[in-house]
Amino acid sequence: MTWITGSVTAPRGFRAAGVRCGIKSQGKDLALIVSDTPATVAGMFTTNRAAAPCVRYSRHVVEAGTARAIIANSGNANAATGEEGFMDNVRMAQKVAQLLECPPAQVVTASTGIIGHRLPIEKVEKGIEQAMLELSPDGGNAAAEAIMTTDTVPKQEAIRLHLPAGAVHIGGIAKGAGMIAPNMATMLCFLTTDAQIAAPALQQVLKDAVERSFHCLTIDSDTSTNDMVVILANGQSGVDVHRYLNDFQMALENLCIRLAQRIARDGEGATKLVEIEVRGAPTFKQARKMAKTVAESPLVKTALFGNDPNWGRVLAAMGRSGVDFDPERAQIALQGTLVYTEGKPTAFDARELHEQLKADTVTIVIDLQEGTEHATVWTCDFSYDYVRINAEYHT
Amino acid sequence: MTWITGSVTAPRGFRAAGVRCGIKSQGKDLALIVSDTPATVAGMFTTNRAAAPCVRYSRHVVEAGTARAIIANSGNANAATGEEGFMDNVRMAQKVAQLLECPPAQVVTASTGIIGHRLPIEKVEKGIEQAMLELSPDGGNAAAEAIMTTDTVPKQEAIRLHLPAGAVHIGGIAKGAGMIAPNMATMLCFLTTDAQIAAPALQQVLKDAVERSFHCLTIDSDTSTNDMVVILANGQSGVDVHRYLNDFQMALENLCIRLAQRIARDGEGATKLVEIEVRGAPTFKQARKMAKTVAESPLVKTALFGNDPNWGRVLAAMGRSGVDFDPERAQIALQGTLVYTEGKPTAFDARELHEQLKADTVTIVIDLQEGTEHATVWTCDFSYDYVRINAEYHT
Repeated sequence: MTWITGSVTAPRGFRAAGVRCGIKSQGKDLALIVSDTPATVAGMFTTNRAAAPCVRYSRHVVEAGTARAIIANSGNANAATGEEGFMDNVRMAQKVAQLLECPPAQVVTASTGIIGHRLPIEKVEKGIEQAMLELSPDGGNAAAEAIMTTDTVPKQEAIRLHLPAGAVHIGGIAKGAGMIAPNMATMLCFLTTDAQIAAPALQQVLKDAVERSFHCLTIDSDTSTNDMVVILANGQSGVDVHRYLNDFQMALENLCIRLAQRIARDGEGATKLVEIEVRGAPTFKQARKMAKTVAESPLVKTALFGNDPNWGRVLAAMGRSGVDFDPERAQIALQGTLVYTEGKPTAFDARELHEQLKADTVTIVIDLQEGTEHATVWTCDFSYDYVRINAEYHT
Repeated sequence: MTWITGSVTAPRGFRAAGVRCGIKSQGKDLALIVSDTPATVAGMFTTNRAAAPCVRYSRHVVEAGTARAIIANSGNANAATGEEGFMDNVRMAQKVAQLLECPPAQVVTASTGIIGHRLPIEKVEKGIEQAMLELSPDGGNAAAEAIMTTDTVPKQEAIRLHLPAGAVHIGGIAKGAGMIAPNMATMLCFLTTDAQIAAPALQQVLKDAVERSFHCLTIDSDTSTNDMVVILANGQSGVDVHRYLNDFQMALENLCIRLAQRIARDGEGATKLVEIEVRGAPTFKQARKMAKTVAESPLVKTALFGNDPNWGRVLAAMGRSGVDFDPERAQIALQGTLVYTEGKPTAFDARELHEQLKADTVTIVIDLQEGTEHATVWTCDFSYDYVRINAEYHT
């Protein structure tokens, strides 16, 4: 398994483009990813009851199992826009389908940005024509840029997996969680691979990878109306991965973890990446539940912003996580320093630890000593800038 | 039912005091509430797994059903202090018991403040002697002051309930939720009444009142290690309330709601009280669950700090609350203005609503149109000061 340069266009037979169609006040705002041949498709979508039209539409595409393209716009979530909004989304898919000469049911749609505003669909349609002209095997980076909203950097990763039957590639782009100015964020992730794999196996592999990557990511506890992770597998490598599903899943999981970490590091107002591991838990789900409760505590996140080794807030969050554990047996370590054990704080040097917490990656390791399972969750700290970004915009 | 001046000393046969024993760097930090005669006692405690010794101890007092006094200190939560911390707590109860000549099992203990530091127990014991000397039927206000940590104002309420058999009184003091500098917050509430009532009935009435008051209060989602609500009923009014349990429960609930509102208004960094009502829900619990999800959303809270009529964030929080509803049927109103209906925003005047949101009390009313139940939850907005208070302290 080798990390390589590139993103969704690293696997064979994929082209992409990112163009400006005029939804946002500036910058690229329309991304197109196309597989030269029909690809198997899998996806996971937001569980939000108020899901946007693109989520409802793309679920059907995934159920059908075959896709040629992903079209995504930023700057407008096309959520809470009524029946008209649903039709705008259909038009997006139809325009791509018409130009690719494929069924609209083979086009995944995605939108991110403000809620409750109609999409300027004519601009989007013109943008699709432009993107189609600019499609290129080097277009992954432009596509990554085009899905950004309050993200400060594009996020992309690619990997080469060496299997006995040959090499397969996986690439991905993602955009930031942390709800987004002016209104609503979306965690979007688009993945491509040239592996040969049937849709049901692809769906299972994606689900497992997401469980330990994006489902272990939390910026501010919010599940948006538009979240989705979608993967296209076009088989162009000629390598069938069904016999190596475990290797393939691990490669995909690693790639998703890197993208999740990039999202956390670029969370709104974030000054650092925070990695919270719960070890010695009876099950993975309990470990993740506790790690997430700690990760989402505004008190823990503000303490980390202040570089404060405030283990008391970590313990309090553990205690209310709903996970059963013995506070006398649990241990807490901050940046590798044991700060709490046997029901009491250790005699650590708070001033020294305060300095160490100024690092750009901070780790919190909790050992429950109750079992053998563990989970890692990624988040960021909670700063003045988070409040500024989310309070100062006026609808 | 009449609101009257006073607090825990408004009911007959109660005396209180608030003194400085030297735990905090300044101000009163030890409160004592005493019933002249043994009182029935009921209480509700934090569900945090890492509960402090005072919680574990006072649970036993409540189970036994009779109490003479409540002793509470601020500035130190006496949590995560090991076996020594538990013994310090026992000494607190013993000192009060010795001076009152009652069993230690009749003394409720409570602590709030920093986690993981031993209590200066000698200072506390001297403070108890002082408080015993200062006990007075006008001491409720001093007791309310003595339990403050980052609270900016003391919180107290009292009520007179007129029943056919005579008048009974209920009084209460509370201290702020919102986790607290330097370390850990606690929501504490101590209630007194001169009603005659047996412990099991008192426990039930308290539970029902807390369900629709303190359990509808959220500052920053955190359940502390030390939270408790305790009520003493000494029967000094000579009025048995068992035949009027419903009236008594309503009076208690109203008093608790007022105290909960005071806590929300005084949340860390709060600039306004936010009242979120979910109507038309199938059950009270579902209504409360959704209202709480909206109340705890950092995105909703930062928008309210910015006076932004950002209904999209409210809808997104509703959607991820886990409560089943139809987004096309639900309605959202901010400060009395309908902003979302039939799956779309209304044509409201955003600039005018922005001005109206500058009020010191903001209401969000959500109507699901799915049932007949409703719940109201209280919280506050999320400001720069919240981050400052919780980030700038260094342990």
